[in-house]
Amino acid sequence: MHSPDTNSASAPRIAADILERLRAQRPRVHCITNAVAQNFTANVLLAAGVIPSMTISVEEVGSFVAGAKAVLVNLGTLNAERYGATEAALAAAEQNRLPWVLDPVLVERSPTRADFARQLVGRAPKVVRLNPAEFTALSGEQASPEVSARYATAHDVVVALSGATDIVTDGKRVARIANGDPLMDKVTAMGCAGSALIAACLAVETDPWQAAIAGLLLLNIAGELAAKEAKGPGTFAVAILDALHALDRATVLERAKVS
Amino acid sequence: MHSPDTNSASAPRIAADILERLRAQRPRVHCITNAVAQNFTANVLLAAGVIPSMTISVEEVGSFVAGAKAVLVNLGTLNAERYGATEAALAAAEQNRLPWVLDPVLVERSPTRADFARQLVGRAPKVVRLNPAEFTALSGEQASPEVSARYATAHDVVVALSGATDIVTDGKRVARIANGDPLMDKVTAMGCAGSALIAACLAVETDPWQAAIAGLLLLNIAGELAAKEAKGPGTFAVAILDALHALDRATVLERAKVS
Amino acid sequence: MHSPDTNSASAPRIAADILERLRAQRPRVHCITNAVAQNFTANVLLAAGVIPSMTISVEEVGSFVAGAKAVLVNLGTLNAERYGATEAALAAAEQNRLPWVLDPVLVERSPTRADFARQLVGRAPKVVRLNPAEFTALSGEQASPEVSARYATAHDVVVALSGATDIVTDGKRVARIANGDPLMDKVTAMGCAGSALIAACLAVETDPWQAAIAGLLLLNIAGELAAKEAKGPGTFAVAILDALHALDRATVLERAKVS
Repeated sequence: MHSPDTNSASAPRIAADILERLRAQRPRVHCITNAVAQNFTANVLLAAGVIPSMTISVEEVGSFVAGAKAVLVNLGTLNAERYGATEAALAAAEQNRLPWVLDPVLVERSPTRADFARQLVGRAPKVVRLNPAEFTALSGEQASPEVSARYATAHDVVVALSGATDIVTDGKRVARIANGDPLMDKVTAMGCAGSALIAACLAVETDPWQAAIAGLLLLNIAGELAAKEAKGPGTFAVAILDALHALDRATVLERAKVS
Repeated sequence: MHSPDTNSASAPRIAADILERLRAQRPRVHCITNAVAQNFTANVLLAAGVIPSMTISVEEVGSFVAGAKAVLVNLGTLNAERYGATEAALAAAEQNRLPWVLDPVLVERSPTRADFARQLVGRAPKVVRLNPAEFTALSGEQASPEVSARYATAHDVVVALSGATDIVTDGKRVARIANGDPLMDKVTAMGCAGSALIAACLAVETDPWQAAIAGLLLLNIAGELAAKEAKGPGTFAVAILDALHALDRATVLERAKVS
Repeated sequence: MHSPDTNSASAPRIAADILERLRAQRPRVHCITNAVAQNFTANVLLAAGVIPSMTISVEEVGSFVAGAKAVLVNLGTLNAERYGATEAALAAAEQNRLPWVLDPVLVERSPTRADFARQLVGRAPKVVRLNPAEFTALSGEQASPEVSARYATAHDVVVALSGATDIVTDGKRVARIANGDPLMDKVTAMGCAGSALIAACLAVETDPWQAAIAGLLLLNIAGELAAKEAKGPGTFAVAILDALHALDRATVLERAKVS
């Protein structure tokens, strides 16, 4: 049995707390992310009150990570430079005991990328955020809440599985997040931005399961609010930044659908 | 003589068919494109119902292209990595008989880039999309419908020449597209996105002349609709994504100005 | 004593002149800038009437710079390729006597980047634009108008120091720009875009102090106008492009707060 504070019932309140901590503490999050996602990810973090840094040069990543509070490793547009940056970033994260998130983008399209992702799971990320196709390529099994929970236990990691309903599990606890909007799939780098927000939440919350729920919940609620303003994916991508910037405790508590 | 189906009179109907096929089949298009254009190009493809992939790492491009339906090679911000990615992408495209589009961005500014573009024309792209200055640098002649048609015949390629009126020719057939809006020139990567849309159309249409017309026509009509909403180039770049996402058969048939 | 034309009282009028020259002459500005900023910077320049080019490949930078009218060197996401591009760009700028701007992004986070920035100050940039933390890392002193003026004199460079009030000094003259909006800090690459605009202004104005004031003033006034339209950082980033595109002489003269 978990105490009430570690059940999904507490997740909306904790997400609201985390949002307030992000604005108060303004942690810096260092992102090794893909070329398509860099600009949007930085703007999502800024809208949430977080400071992004994005360099991927192997000479500089160590210094940048050393002063950051959390790290994102996103495997999109993976190249020699990003392999080096990831190694340098994880070395600095380990030395400074910083939490980090793995986003194994499109591992189903590239065997070498999938191999690298499997190695990285062994480097103790706090959270792996991915979609079902990516999960299958990583784990060799069809994605489901049960399989995700087993994977989480086996690898001592929180699995955050994106979908119409997001599943977040640390092996013992499973949360389902029913917020969001279909337009989120029509904007490139939306999933990448969600992973970056999870990294930001890890900077201010020690329970990685709650941090992963909070990151997805905040973005998904912002997505719902944005959909009310938007006429299509263009205005939606803009409105989600406005919504995230304006998001407050009351709105999170009112709209959260976590079970 | 061409049958009615291969005359420009049929182009609006075929473009509307292609749009519906894009939404039904959701082909993946792999884009080797420049650093400035990657994000906007991905969002344009998503708005049209297409799945983008954008990696340029030489180790991974082959796997990504092998499972795609068409390829874009855009020469903007060309560097050692993009040279390698282009070679790997074309090898995989040839092996899998995938159609591809060449966009020789700013070849008039760089002799080495122009040389590379001329080599690539020999690798059997279905379409070359470019502006008049780029055409002149590539071909050594002033751009005109007649010169474009000769170039198309000589190199067995469709030439899609952007301008106030776009010219699309395969050497035998010439179409003029009078749709579009001047604000399209005030948004970076708009031409690059047009080339990506042409690649998407090639994924679902075997006649490359019709595919090239369709790609430009869909983007230009979306541009006209966006201009009605926009207050300047910022809102225009956003509104064109909305318009492309909402575009339907009736609007294409009603607004197309192809002769 | 300076003539009226070189006092800050003349700055709004000269900024309005510069804006009109940008639209009339449409100079091309070559930008070596970071991966996060490339797209937004290109769109800011286009909105101002300027032609951007952005390649960072060492083989091509020389050709691109040779035909440009001004150059930006921004040190964000600095990597081996950008080191090489900077060297090639400065060699071409020196040979063609082109003015250039240095933006030493986040030098306080990376000792190697700070060293490189100090070397570059010795390569005769016309303007260094940076924030107080970056100034301190570069100069070893706390930023202030007096310290900035001393630095400007010692290094024969205009210092453009961003803040709630921007300070622009060539050592003899000091201008304070009180325009702008807090949302400018919530959009990634806004400072980078300001540096690019200063480079554009240098393309059409020989007094680097007036060019630096004009670049910041035009962007800051566009920011104020955008804030009136915006609901948050997403719509703000879009609206500032519209505002810059629509900006005219009367609005510059009416809104400028330069002392």
